[in-house]
Amino acid sequence: MIRIVAQSLTAASFAPFGDVLEAAGEPDRIINAGLCGRWHDQATLDFGPDGRVGISVFLSEPRALPYTLDLLERHPDGSQAFIPMHGQDWLVIAAPDNAGKPGKPQAFLASGRQGVNFHRGTWHGVLTPLAEPGLFTVVDRIGDTPNLEEYRLDPPYAVMA
Amino acid sequence: MIRIVAQSLTAASFAPFGDVLEAAGEPDRIINAGLCGRWHDQATLDFGPDGRVGISVFLSEPRALPYTLDLLERHPDGSQAFIPMHGQDWLVIAAPDNAGKPGKPQAFLASGRQGVNFHRGTWHGVLTPLAEPGLFTVVDRIGDTPNLEEYRLDPPYAVMA
Repeated sequence: MIRIVAQSLTAASFAPFGDVLEAAGEPDRIINAGLCGRWHDQATLDFGPDGRVGISVFLSEPRALPYTLDLLERHPDGSQAFIPMHGQDWLVIAAPDNAGKPGKPQAFLASGRQGVNFHRGTWHGVLTPLAEPGLFTVVDRIGDTPNLEEYRLDPPYAVMA
Repeated sequence: MIRIVAQSLTAASFAPFGDVLEAAGEPDRIINAGLCGRWHDQATLDFGPDGRVGISVFLSEPRALPYTLDLLERHPDGSQAFIPMHGQDWLVIAAPDNAGKPGKPQAFLASGRQGVNFHRGTWHGVLTPLAEPGLFTVVDRIGDTPNLEEYRLDPPYAVMA
């Protein structure tokens, strides 16, 4: 299998695919009498003309590294944010689009203090926590369309840290 | 000080104030080839006619119990969801409205696997994590209005577990 080595998740490295949700650098605002920092409005959200935003909770089986990556998906009608609720490292996978198919995937090792928001239509892997409990809050589109394209990778990739 | 004893956070007890975001009971859908459960569309979101949704990150100083509660606030123009990213117990405080002022506050002990969404205009306490890091993702209204009313409680309440 072709190997993919996960790099650290940063706003710059992830920019082609979406937003990193994190308390990095100085807060945009200090609130609550100085006791709380707010890093404001970090995600480019897009739910299309016929969708609305919703908050859901996902509980996913943890995966081990190396991870066999054989499936990518994308949501053509809306952005999708994954917010870890477990405080532990997790794996993020995304790929550029190449004429309607995913190009070579990239892997990112996210800390438990980092969420991501995939921009609308971005190829990405399914949720891949690396430890129990694989609990995430998800902010994505609620609507009547299937809003899902899947692409099977043959041969698969081996993702490692 | 008047004492308030925090009760366990449940969807039923919190219903007058908002939604509990959690993986409780059976998932609404199983996705990702059986490896992930989705508890779907758990929050009543309302950002008003002139607002839009945003995702922000808050980092708040942890508080100790008993907690001296001397301030409540509400956001008249939008709902506000707090999603813990730390996996640890935290404190949720809310109060009914009584002719434009908060009535007697109620306190809830939330687990690290529970977020909440305060319905638009609901009186609530500021973020009160009980351990480091007090890191939360917040889904609330982005707009041009102040969207904040504060009410100082004199005398304050003492909140305990």
